[in-house]
Amino acid sequence: MILAFILFVFKGRKAKLAPDANIKLKYDDDDLLLLTPGPVKLHPRVLKALSSPVRYHREKSFIDSLNFVTKSISNLEGTNNLTVPITGSGTAAMDSAISSMVKRESKVLSFVNGAFSERLYNISRYYSDNVTPYFKEWGKAITGEDVKKALEDKEFDFVTLVHNETSTGVLNPMDEVMQEVNKGGAISIVDGVTSVGSDRVEVDRWGIDAMITASQKCLGGPPGVSFVTLSKRALSVIEKSDRGQNYYLDVRNYIKGGKVDVPFTTATPLVIALQEAIAMIYEEGLDNRINRHRLMGKAVRAGAQAMGLELLAERGHESNTVTAIKIPDKAESVVSQGKRYGVLFAGGQGKLTEKIIRIGHMNTVGEREVLTGLSVLDAVLTDLGIAHETGKGTLAALKEFSSAGSN
Amino acid sequence: MILAFILFVFKGRKAKLAPDANIKLKYDDDDLLLLTPGPVKLHPRVLKALSSPVRYHREKSFIDSLNFVTKSISNLEGTNNLTVPITGSGTAAMDSAISSMVKRESKVLSFVNGAFSERLYNISRYYSDNVTPYFKEWGKAITGEDVKKALEDKEFDFVTLVHNETSTGVLNPMDEVMQEVNKGGAISIVDGVTSVGSDRVEVDRWGIDAMITASQKCLGGPPGVSFVTLSKRALSVIEKSDRGQNYYLDVRNYIKGGKVDVPFTTATPLVIALQEAIAMIYEEGLDNRINRHRLMGKAVRAGAQAMGLELLAERGHESNTVTAIKIPDKAESVVSQGKRYGVLFAGGQGKLTEKIIRIGHMNTVGEREVLTGLSVLDAVLTDLGIAHETGKGTLAALKEFSSAGSN
Repeated sequence: MILAFILFVFKGRKAKLAPDANIKLKYDDDDLLLLTPGPVKLHPRVLKALSSPVRYHREKSFIDSLNFVTKSISNLEGTNNLTVPITGSGTAAMDSAISSMVKRESKVLSFVNGAFSERLYNISRYYSDNVTPYFKEWGKAITGEDVKKALEDKEFDFVTLVHNETSTGVLNPMDEVMQEVNKGGAISIVDGVTSVGSDRVEVDRWGIDAMITASQKCLGGPPGVSFVTLSKRALSVIEKSDRGQNYYLDVRNYIKGGKVDVPFTTATPLVIALQEAIAMIYEEGLDNRINRHRLMGKAVRAGAQAMGLELLAERGHESNTVTAIKIPDKAESVVSQGKRYGVLFAGGQGKLTEKIIRIGHMNTVGEREVLTGLSVLDAVLTDLGIAHETGKGTLAALKEFSSAGSN
Repeated sequence: MILAFILFVFKGRKAKLAPDANIKLKYDDDDLLLLTPGPVKLHPRVLKALSSPVRYHREKSFIDSLNFVTKSISNLEGTNNLTVPITGSGTAAMDSAISSMVKRESKVLSFVNGAFSERLYNISRYYSDNVTPYFKEWGKAITGEDVKKALEDKEFDFVTLVHNETSTGVLNPMDEVMQEVNKGGAISIVDGVTSVGSDRVEVDRWGIDAMITASQKCLGGPPGVSFVTLSKRALSVIEKSDRGQNYYLDVRNYIKGGKVDVPFTTATPLVIALQEAIAMIYEEGLDNRINRHRLMGKAVRAGAQAMGLELLAERGHESNTVTAIKIPDKAESVVSQGKRYGVLFAGGQGKLTEKIIRIGHMNTVGEREVLTGLSVLDAVLTDLGIAHETGKGTLAALKEFSSAGSN
């Protein structure tokens, strides 16, 4: 016994690492840190709520939860407008808003400066024969000037745009944009999937008629439910006809006597989990949460730039929830190598594929995650031989954190 | 101290129950036994899978899970046809099948003998101006004779019907029905939401072109994802035009190079949980599982009839997964009182409201749940003063169990 122990120690001491041994931890997909711009990592409390026993979708206690969720979303959007819940992804809510109101002959103006505003344009073209696009370079913001130009001498029934372009990391300046949109009098359909719950949204003040959002990004819930918040003007458009163009997503199905109704089976576990996520938003306080997201955005941008990398977003219009970083021709390799370190960045979409990586800094992303993301990015760039200033990313982020006086 | 103890015991011994005290356990909604025909109670293993860390919907490990789920569903349906996953309820899959293929001018024949076949009819009318209904009394089956009559001297592009009518507890005899449908040559769209995974389904043998199912019933998963399985004929109809009538639910979005694609955010936690539920189906064995469901159906029907209650379903066409029991004018009271005992039955839908209750016996329902359901029903009928043979329900069920030689 004692001899065996001595032999073991002796052997252990003399053991050398085989040259091909891999002593690194292998991260599997259950252990990836999601720094994607949605779906986001769920807080353990939200995961726990997700696995509560399944509720029947017509029981009062579930309806209470659903009402809490929809009313909270209106509240986080700065309005008392009616929020309608949809079982489906954010695209389902986009489709719902458009197909419930737009007719084949409706005149629609679609502002396109990224993949999600392009999707609004594509959905509009699917349901109307009369859609005018206004294209802007991906990475640039839609401004009040753009809206003015697009509306000059023209009349539209509907206008579509996104608030925060998840594909480019651009935050459109809604104060000036909506002021110009509303001069035209069109019904506005706005995608707030990566702003509602984590950035300032003012549906009433901005005068947005249909605000779209989804569970899995800035609200901190699991993916699979989405929402449309309808103004009185939007509701009056809807009441004018007895049907839209999409049976399953027709908001008329989901409203009964001015209140939310549950016409079809609902993804009850997702709603219960989202309820917990929203409760956590209120515990943190919306203002605090918005300021946290702004700080994290600032830190990620400062870190990327200190590493000598270039941002895609036009200066002054950077998103607070997602940052797009230019990595020409090597973006997919960076994403792939990041997984070796247990971190998942997102690549570019559509024409930005292979050109950028995107770092989501929403929901449970705090200082720890930003530092992790920047230092892993540094390691990955080194591994791949991509020129950058090593060691400077986290330093710049730390400077942002300390100047904000956190901790 | 000792004195206090003696006083306590003395007081305790003398304590009498106040006449208004409620010593019964109050069941909350998290502790309800769901005997509804979906959503069903989830097995603890499935609940655990549901709360795994969120997967990113474009990662390989998630795509592997999704492929396992869609291929298994085809397999459970007796086919190798392509199964397309939809983030949405069963109604979304109904809409997807219809709106992806049916045109405004298409001739559609809809068989209606309950609320879900009526929904297929309503969706068909939403997308086509040329829909012929064939109405049958709710509670009766659609037979080969019905199909013959409906198709006489007429030609249709599409036929819609349900396999198992969840609203009435009727199982349509698909062998004879589909034989007649296929003589007409129309593309068939069939709802298998309460059969696939728990009853015999033979998509290839029956020649079904679009088979619809959903996660939360006979497959044993959480609610929120649904599926359409498409035959080569259905795919060729789809390939003939470049779009359907519903953007979000167009199956063209979900197929790329003959394989399943993930165009939009997917409800990844629901898919991961469903994967576990389907793994459990294979562990039990599909044949075993079907036989179990048949036995549970038999036991519930025998129990209800022994209590002197009447079934809604026509004799010989009773569903193996849900039983509708006539409770004239008192159905909603029975459902409501059942909750006092911690059991949730479902009421009737549409024109059957207040006329029937429905007991779901699918997925995790075994002998224990059937005995619980029948004895609680007995107690509830007694509470409400509804005439019935008390004590006979469970006895009849036990007889079924022992004649089947279980345990």
